[in-house]
Amino acid sequence: MICTALVFFMHMGFAFLEIGLTRQKNTINILFKNIFIITVGLLLYALVGFNLMYPGFAEGSSGIFGFAGFGLDSPLTAEGALDLSYNEGYTYWTDFLFQGMFAATAATIVSGAVAERIKIGPFMIFTILYVGLIYPIAGSWKWGAGFLDMRETPFYDFAGSTLVHSVGGWAALVAVWLLGSRIGKYKDGKPQAIPGHNIPLATAGVLILWLGWFGFNGGSVLSADPALTSLTLVTTCLAAAAGGVVAALVSTVMFKNLDLTMFLNGILGGLVGITAGADQMSPTDAIIIGAVAGAIIVFAVSLIDRLKLDDPVGAIAVHLVCGIWGTLAVGLFGELASGAQFVSQLVGVGSYAAICIVSSFVILYILKVTVGIRVSEKEELEGLDGHEHGMDAYPDFRMNEH
Amino acid sequence: MICTALVFFMHMGFAFLEIGLTRQKNTINILFKNIFIITVGLLLYALVGFNLMYPGFAEGSSGIFGFAGFGLDSPLTAEGALDLSYNEGYTYWTDFLFQGMFAATAATIVSGAVAERIKIGPFMIFTILYVGLIYPIAGSWKWGAGFLDMRETPFYDFAGSTLVHSVGGWAALVAVWLLGSRIGKYKDGKPQAIPGHNIPLATAGVLILWLGWFGFNGGSVLSADPALTSLTLVTTCLAAAAGGVVAALVSTVMFKNLDLTMFLNGILGGLVGITAGADQMSPTDAIIIGAVAGAIIVFAVSLIDRLKLDDPVGAIAVHLVCGIWGTLAVGLFGELASGAQFVSQLVGVGSYAAICIVSSFVILYILKVTVGIRVSEKEELEGLDGHEHGMDAYPDFRMNEH
Amino acid sequence: MICTALVFFMHMGFAFLEIGLTRQKNTINILFKNIFIITVGLLLYALVGFNLMYPGFAEGSSGIFGFAGFGLDSPLTAEGALDLSYNEGYTYWTDFLFQGMFAATAATIVSGAVAERIKIGPFMIFTILYVGLIYPIAGSWKWGAGFLDMRETPFYDFAGSTLVHSVGGWAALVAVWLLGSRIGKYKDGKPQAIPGHNIPLATAGVLILWLGWFGFNGGSVLSADPALTSLTLVTTCLAAAAGGVVAALVSTVMFKNLDLTMFLNGILGGLVGITAGADQMSPTDAIIIGAVAGAIIVFAVSLIDRLKLDDPVGAIAVHLVCGIWGTLAVGLFGELASGAQFVSQLVGVGSYAAICIVSSFVILYILKVTVGIRVSEKEELEGLDGHEHGMDAYPDFRMNEH
Repeated sequence: MICTALVFFMHMGFAFLEIGLTRQKNTINILFKNIFIITVGLLLYALVGFNLMYPGFAEGSSGIFGFAGFGLDSPLTAEGALDLSYNEGYTYWTDFLFQGMFAATAATIVSGAVAERIKIGPFMIFTILYVGLIYPIAGSWKWGAGFLDMRETPFYDFAGSTLVHSVGGWAALVAVWLLGSRIGKYKDGKPQAIPGHNIPLATAGVLILWLGWFGFNGGSVLSADPALTSLTLVTTCLAAAAGGVVAALVSTVMFKNLDLTMFLNGILGGLVGITAGADQMSPTDAIIIGAVAGAIIVFAVSLIDRLKLDDPVGAIAVHLVCGIWGTLAVGLFGELASGAQFVSQLVGVGSYAAICIVSSFVILYILKVTVGIRVSEKEELEGLDGHEHGMDAYPDFRMNEH
Repeated sequence: MICTALVFFMHMGFAFLEIGLTRQKNTINILFKNIFIITVGLLLYALVGFNLMYPGFAEGSSGIFGFAGFGLDSPLTAEGALDLSYNEGYTYWTDFLFQGMFAATAATIVSGAVAERIKIGPFMIFTILYVGLIYPIAGSWKWGAGFLDMRETPFYDFAGSTLVHSVGGWAALVAVWLLGSRIGKYKDGKPQAIPGHNIPLATAGVLILWLGWFGFNGGSVLSADPALTSLTLVTTCLAAAAGGVVAALVSTVMFKNLDLTMFLNGILGGLVGITAGADQMSPTDAIIIGAVAGAIIVFAVSLIDRLKLDDPVGAIAVHLVCGIWGTLAVGLFGELASGAQFVSQLVGVGSYAAICIVSSFVILYILKVTVGIRVSEKEELEGLDGHEHGMDAYPDFRMNEH
Repeated sequence: MICTALVFFMHMGFAFLEIGLTRQKNTINILFKNIFIITVGLLLYALVGFNLMYPGFAEGSSGIFGFAGFGLDSPLTAEGALDLSYNEGYTYWTDFLFQGMFAATAATIVSGAVAERIKIGPFMIFTILYVGLIYPIAGSWKWGAGFLDMRETPFYDFAGSTLVHSVGGWAALVAVWLLGSRIGKYKDGKPQAIPGHNIPLATAGVLILWLGWFGFNGGSVLSADPALTSLTLVTTCLAAAAGGVVAALVSTVMFKNLDLTMFLNGILGGLVGITAGADQMSPTDAIIIGAVAGAIIVFAVSLIDRLKLDDPVGAIAVHLVCGIWGTLAVGLFGELASGAQFVSQLVGVGSYAAICIVSSFVILYILKVTVGIRVSEKEELEGLDGHEHGMDAYPDFRMNEH
């Protein structure tokens, strides 16, 4: 339950990170999107998501799609009173709320990548479909005991390098590609830096996300076994630290600059990387996985930029690339490392790539050719806050002149 | 104990929300008031409040007023050593600290409503009397097993829709009425928007408050039964989500604007609304209660504005109106719903209205006619920060010119 | 484990406090230093620190220095599987992570005091040596069962008034003295106020630190006995409240100003002061200890200023002076109070003064005479952010002109 609170708090971390790394004129828009995602995501997860994700696949079923019915009333049945026997130490309700907090995360990842130019209406429709349907169906393949869990060597994803982060990351990639880059991002084909407006908030966002990962990974030890939970927190924190340090080192060597945002992205990369196998690794494994993620981040951010994929907050590099790395790393390091496991991890990565790319493309392409997904040039230049929300982020900030 | 930490953290949420929604020139003043409330509130609660609120009413007493003596030493008596037998799993000290964190909340609610024009000295006196005496005496009527708890169908208020939120809300209403509106709030009788200075902070404040509610409602399951606690967190979060979504929908329909602050106020309204019965509701009940609270918020904010009650942060709509709604809802929904319960809820609401309106009026009216409660016009226009504190909130913010 | 998360979160509190109280032009630099400290500190603690601090001193050893070997693999030995028997309810991994989060704190304290003028390279070297070697060796003297713990009346420091706060404070004192004051701090020998750039962030920082102290002191009750833990949280919060209120009162009397930063420093002083004996004090003792710390803060800040020791965030007054007070208070108040205990506390304070002053002087003096520890005058005037990091803290903040 405490972990659920921490995972909830990650949404504040994401919000801080996104607004910190983007321009002031789009701040309200980003906050609105994030608040929308949390609230609507949770309601959708109660209505359909939870029962799509944990359908209780019938024996002999394909394990691809199942649905246990609408709503959340299951353990109230018998005599209408609360059925407390659902699961020792980890109740039905905790389970729902913890997973519901995760669900919204996938859309939040997309939100950062498409910031500063997506129309809010279509984004809301996309969020409803992707969080309400795609995320839980995809999730059922593993956490709902679906076909990836039925394999002889089951696919393994402890707390969501693939099921959460890549699911968001693939959609972010598709969305960024369909949207195109922000005005001014490329001049004569070369990427230009568009600095954000509040780096202290972005830094706070990363620290809050790290804190939230205590809940994300810690809470995923469903048995709440103290020794395993604490090992998981150690691997999580060491991977984060190693990711940050290596990203800072590599970027300092490459760009001759002590770059704070690379340091921060490295931490996030390390966290995403360790997530798939946080309970399977020794501290040394964790440091290696985090360090590799830190190096990957620097190159991935730079590569994505050069591919003309304009991702203002680095979401694709952090959540998709490091998510894939972390998932594969389960086959290479730790208790489960084996050739068969590595193949199983590859199959998992491929399966999620397929469903996420196809579904997000279909949704977003239909939106693009019907209502359009990008704001007008005028609105983009003047900022989305005024046009969509009639509001500034810091409306009174300059009245107190010196 | 963890819940106590989360409830403590709500004070940061309140501070962020208040300064975010008010002008920069009064920021230090608001922060000072909030820090004052937390620290002095806690000391007062240790000195008298706890023993006023949990007096252990004698059998046959009226259950209106009791006092168990000054200070906090009870369970140290026997041989001077710590008496660990006070309560299994939930000790005397936890009890004190958890309740002490609540106590300060009532004054914080008032602080937001009277922001930008109240004199700090009289506000401090009001806080001392209201938090130190009125809040615990009123609280004893129910949580101290007083007369509202002695009724055949006892008044029910799980975590304080009435005992905490309305107690703050009634005083906020009285204070706003006695203080008058801020200069410039009404032009030719029409309410003018006075935008705050930092909407990201206000948004963060709401998310922190939501997080704190995990502790507020979760910690109020004194038995700490995992199933009941987790159900309580589910109802809390669903009501918050429903409140936000409905408030955003209604305000979008009414004002043709995706209004972030209404979204945020709706979340808070949903949280306040579910608080009285968070442990008695099914998820569906919780969504309905939250949704109604969300709709109420939009109309209440607008009504209060038109009544020329100038409440910069919407505290009256959120804490008083939704507090009343949530208290009555216990008689309409969930396990306790019945005619007798609804009557009992009405009696409770009325009793708290009586003590809070009368006491806050007496205190504030005496202060008004003696020392005055409102700052001078000059000070209001120039900002309270310079006049009362000799300090700016962002003193160095513009030196780094581009 | 939850306490570990809260202690981790303190690093965000420190970061907010430091950047809030310093100028905008050095914000990125401070954030970079803080992120560096957390990540590198944790890695160093895994590599050598933990085994330096808990070396398991051999019987009959002097208890001054021991080393249990590199790395963290101990409880994985037997058959390569995880040894879960290390400690009931409080595992090896929790222990490591909790202590690792503490370790980094010592360097963070220094970071605040030397802000706005230290060269980042030498500061990083200092951090590595001080956090990686000095802090754990010094810590082993008491928490590692070293010579201060072997005394007939053992030195007592519950959660680090001396082992954490003074260790940081002594180094801060030495560093400030070797560095010299910031340009413009003294005019004709008189201290000038150099206001920070974001007081709301500084206030948030203090509230986050207070929250973190729930983990710092609560988590130090290693047995996690509920009654003792909750008493500890009560004493912690009451001392914080009393420290704040007294500091505000004293500074209001002295300077005729409701000074928010003194209020905040008083809270921190109270927290540092209670830390050495938080589990040994009655509520009344805690209030007295906190109140004295609050008074001390006001005079110490002013004295340090007049001694031309330029400490932008008041770290020396808060962590060193109140740390010493809190340590000595264990001999004067509470369960352990006795003449022998007071002498033992004095010996402890002296021992830590010796190792910290000598080691930090040696490290910093060598750095000073070789690579230099202070940035150029040009860089100091223009800000460290542009020179060391090529980056502004709020790069886009002014584009949205009204």
